[in-house]
Amino acid sequence: MNAYAGKILRVNLTTGSIVTEPLPVDKAKAFVGGRGLGGRMLAEEIPAGIDPLGEENKIFFITGPLTGTPAPTSGRYMVVTKSPLNNTIASSNSGGYWGAELKFAGYDMVIVEGKAKEPVYIYIKDDQVEIRPAAKYWGKLVGETTDLLLEEVGDPKARVLTIGPAGENLSPIAAVMNDRYRAAGRSGVGAVMGSKNLKAIVVRGSGKVELAQPDRFREVVSGVMRKIKEHSVTGQGLPSYGTAVLVNVINENGIFPTKNFQEAYFAPADEISGETLAEKYLVKRDPCYRCPIACGRYCRVDGEEGGGPEYETVWAYGSDCGVSDLKAIIKANNWCNEMGLDTISAGATIAAAMELYQRGYIKPEELDGPELKWGSGEAIVEWTRKMGLGEGFGAKLALGAARLCEAYGHPEVAMTVKKQELPAYDPRGVQGHGLQYATSNRGGCHVRGYMISPEVLGVPEQLDRFAVEGKAEWVKTFQDLTAVIDSMGLCLFTSFALSAQDYADLYNAATGLNLDVDELLTCGERIWNNERIFNLQEGYGAQDDTLPERLLKEPIPEGPSKGHVHRLSELLPAYYQIRGWDETGVPTSEKKQALGL
Amino acid sequence: MNAYAGKILRVNLTTGSIVTEPLPVDKAKAFVGGRGLGGRMLAEEIPAGIDPLGEENKIFFITGPLTGTPAPTSGRYMVVTKSPLNNTIASSNSGGYWGAELKFAGYDMVIVEGKAKEPVYIYIKDDQVEIRPAAKYWGKLVGETTDLLLEEVGDPKARVLTIGPAGENLSPIAAVMNDRYRAAGRSGVGAVMGSKNLKAIVVRGSGKVELAQPDRFREVVSGVMRKIKEHSVTGQGLPSYGTAVLVNVINENGIFPTKNFQEAYFAPADEISGETLAEKYLVKRDPCYRCPIACGRYCRVDGEEGGGPEYETVWAYGSDCGVSDLKAIIKANNWCNEMGLDTISAGATIAAAMELYQRGYIKPEELDGPELKWGSGEAIVEWTRKMGLGEGFGAKLALGAARLCEAYGHPEVAMTVKKQELPAYDPRGVQGHGLQYATSNRGGCHVRGYMISPEVLGVPEQLDRFAVEGKAEWVKTFQDLTAVIDSMGLCLFTSFALSAQDYADLYNAATGLNLDVDELLTCGERIWNNERIFNLQEGYGAQDDTLPERLLKEPIPEGPSKGHVHRLSELLPAYYQIRGWDETGVPTSEKKQALGL
Repeated sequence: MNAYAGKILRVNLTTGSIVTEPLPVDKAKAFVGGRGLGGRMLAEEIPAGIDPLGEENKIFFITGPLTGTPAPTSGRYMVVTKSPLNNTIASSNSGGYWGAELKFAGYDMVIVEGKAKEPVYIYIKDDQVEIRPAAKYWGKLVGETTDLLLEEVGDPKARVLTIGPAGENLSPIAAVMNDRYRAAGRSGVGAVMGSKNLKAIVVRGSGKVELAQPDRFREVVSGVMRKIKEHSVTGQGLPSYGTAVLVNVINENGIFPTKNFQEAYFAPADEISGETLAEKYLVKRDPCYRCPIACGRYCRVDGEEGGGPEYETVWAYGSDCGVSDLKAIIKANNWCNEMGLDTISAGATIAAAMELYQRGYIKPEELDGPELKWGSGEAIVEWTRKMGLGEGFGAKLALGAARLCEAYGHPEVAMTVKKQELPAYDPRGVQGHGLQYATSNRGGCHVRGYMISPEVLGVPEQLDRFAVEGKAEWVKTFQDLTAVIDSMGLCLFTSFALSAQDYADLYNAATGLNLDVDELLTCGERIWNNERIFNLQEGYGAQDDTLPERLLKEPIPEGPSKGHVHRLSELLPAYYQIRGWDETGVPTSEKKQALGL
Repeated sequence: MNAYAGKILRVNLTTGSIVTEPLPVDKAKAFVGGRGLGGRMLAEEIPAGIDPLGEENKIFFITGPLTGTPAPTSGRYMVVTKSPLNNTIASSNSGGYWGAELKFAGYDMVIVEGKAKEPVYIYIKDDQVEIRPAAKYWGKLVGETTDLLLEEVGDPKARVLTIGPAGENLSPIAAVMNDRYRAAGRSGVGAVMGSKNLKAIVVRGSGKVELAQPDRFREVVSGVMRKIKEHSVTGQGLPSYGTAVLVNVINENGIFPTKNFQEAYFAPADEISGETLAEKYLVKRDPCYRCPIACGRYCRVDGEEGGGPEYETVWAYGSDCGVSDLKAIIKANNWCNEMGLDTISAGATIAAAMELYQRGYIKPEELDGPELKWGSGEAIVEWTRKMGLGEGFGAKLALGAARLCEAYGHPEVAMTVKKQELPAYDPRGVQGHGLQYATSNRGGCHVRGYMISPEVLGVPEQLDRFAVEGKAEWVKTFQDLTAVIDSMGLCLFTSFALSAQDYADLYNAATGLNLDVDELLTCGERIWNNERIFNLQEGYGAQDDTLPERLLKEPIPEGPSKGHVHRLSELLPAYYQIRGWDETGVPTSEKKQALGL
């Protein structure tokens, strides 16, 4: 089938075996690719109940059919594995260039199994694949590791995916980094690499992706490019100010979580906005492979340079920690990139620690570093460094907010869902988005069905963000469509400008298939239910589809969303019903059968 | 004075002396910086008549006052020296990051004098400056040299400026390259580095640029950023399709030189357009320091990646050689980048060679490579490689079109002004632009007064491109304003969106001066006249302010500009008069006195 490379690379680090296998084509048709196909294969290949950091876990680095094609934003790949943060099915998505390069080397995915005795890295140059020693890189930061690996392979245009010290130290909030500044950030996927003694994967390919209908594909691409360029979000807001263009928008809606979700409005928000970033520190935009949006930032502060920060990062280290010092936020972000830490979880964990400190649960004498007081730029920078290295109290922070607060006997302080830290939108002021937080298959997450789009930005239409009516349907559709976009290998940001039909057109012209929008959304639903079933087998159930108690019971104290709580109990039953799940959140056998699961 | 670093670094390669000197502030006020100040200092420091490739020549790497500030496109620097191509005053402008970094290291400029005994490079890290051996890099391509130097200095964020083999071989069309893909392209400035045994300058700085009125500057920047983003050229055309967005526009006006200016319309132009480039080969946009336009391209062809190509390059290797194979053009462009060759001169020289071949002046048996036939993708790629290395017949091509055609006894085939190859607009269909070609102080050049803007693009207003009336005034104003923009350290592309008042506002807020638009344009006029006087002392005169005879006598044969010739004789006297020059093109003593020259 065109667009797919048609080949899987399977590497077992215990035995040293390197084999290629044909792509299971029927499964690819049913689950599209990337997140969907990887999730299905993972579910089939690993038994329930295994230790995510044990030898039995597997980790998939998997592209979509559109990865490496001329479609806009086609640089993406996903890391699929069992999450060491919360045992859910992890699928962390990343941009940059690594994913496209893997396709050029001739593989849809690399599956890594087992565990190496000593640190290793995998080198892929088209058909040449080697497991190479990496002891000399162990302990090194992401930037230096990248430089040294490019030097070792003697090809500056090779693409490097690596973990930093956080992944090596098995932090459950460790990210997989690629192309220096891009992160498969969430679910602690970096720790799975660390647990396998796998420091990096370096790839270089000389091939290209074959398309079923090249002329038709070119025509479709031309049309979607135009839509992306003409849309105010993808053609103006994101290109000009990056994702942090959201800071002022979200704050002005009074849903910009502040001081660990104790508040939802941050008075000095503009000091950390995308606009201020562009004016003061932006050196260039740093686009991913074939991306016309180019939301990626590259900044310079006090002679220190690096990629980012993103909106979520600016929020987590900014208002969530009460910090209005953008320089400090950039520096904390740089440490996350160098250490291989998820910026949302790392920043939000420091915010949780600040609340534990505020309430006297963490004592000053425990801290071998800056005081954990709200607004301290020094604290966010230095504690991120120590978190990455697992140094002193930093080792506790590296556990993530849920485990940290649990250890102090105050789990209510953790703003997490299924142990994963919530992102940068207070769900009390965006009801649909909150439902999506509660039901996301990987825990607290904003990119499994980004309801901010209709509830705040008015795309594709403006919904009442405080209303609950009809939201369950929206959430389901957004979740299913997102699963398809992820699985195809495109960036979710394209969905501001494109319709489901556009994705079908791209997919059909690339592969030669002929799916209509309903069939495509059914693929998305299949992917979603496969993930759900995986999690159910790990012991998750309806009781876990919830939000932190604060968000359900304590109204937002001030600002434009004052007085609201999240009304999950009014939303969840409708959601289960629409999903074709029983009242305990389990897919009915009819639903499973309909989806071929 | 704020905005300037206030310090000059002077390195003598003969003696090994490294000294810093204060910036001559009064001279900076009179000549702004960059091209203007560097040109003035060069004129004062070197005697007339010296050999540009001899020890007596000096080479300035010089920034402007706005370089390294938060002003949009502030990454630029200029290479000022006596040109080995034609003995004129050279000022080649380049973007990227190197210029801003030099400012961060605390210098407005580096002046290199003398000649090293063995190949060397200069390493600058703030106050630490060293002349280091570079024999091991001599002969290496630009990409590899950059990689190895970054490795040697142990800082991947240092910025590398270097020459390739073409500069080492003293080709008079060799460029100075920086940040891998950025070129101070024209006038053969790369050969001056080569003649001094200077392979590279590596710079890293930890400082920043101090502004006189930071709040006011921020306000001005915010306004000009908005103008740049809202203008159709700088906000849409250039960001989406790069400079090659011009291919179809210029071709549709019938002024797209084809087959060495024998024709002016290229039927398959769309196959080599910016639109096609974006659809087929563009991997990412590759912006310069603080540039909101991001016209820079980064492409991938057959697994080969690199920066560019620009419009001029696509033209020189495309229609000018009769080539419609965009892949071959990209590959030829990559060779130029690696060899350190000016793409305009290199492509146009091959076009001239193709005409010499077409007319039987070059014989097939002379060629140790592909046949020089119109439209041959193989020829443009392979001859560029050989030109860069000075290999076989490639050594003749490396002399540039004027010397090549002269050597074959057919100087009329060289489409050059003052020995420099003309760029990508047939002046027969743009009268003002042709006057600017004839009077440019560095020979055939489009960026000393880009009359295409009013004559074709309608910016700031639409002029009749076939008319001669009033054009001399336009040319003078554009030349003077351009001199100021160059000298400030900004990209000429900003001028599509900005007014002279905008530049005055930026300059005043940065420096604390208080110049009005007239005073600023007077600086531009002073810069222009200084350059003119330099050239007059080198023996240039009115007889050299001309165009190739073909463009003056043979009408364009087909297409939308059919039947037109360039009417230089109607334009030049008016130009001299407006300039305050006598009828032989010499500035009157009144004019010189008024300008303080």
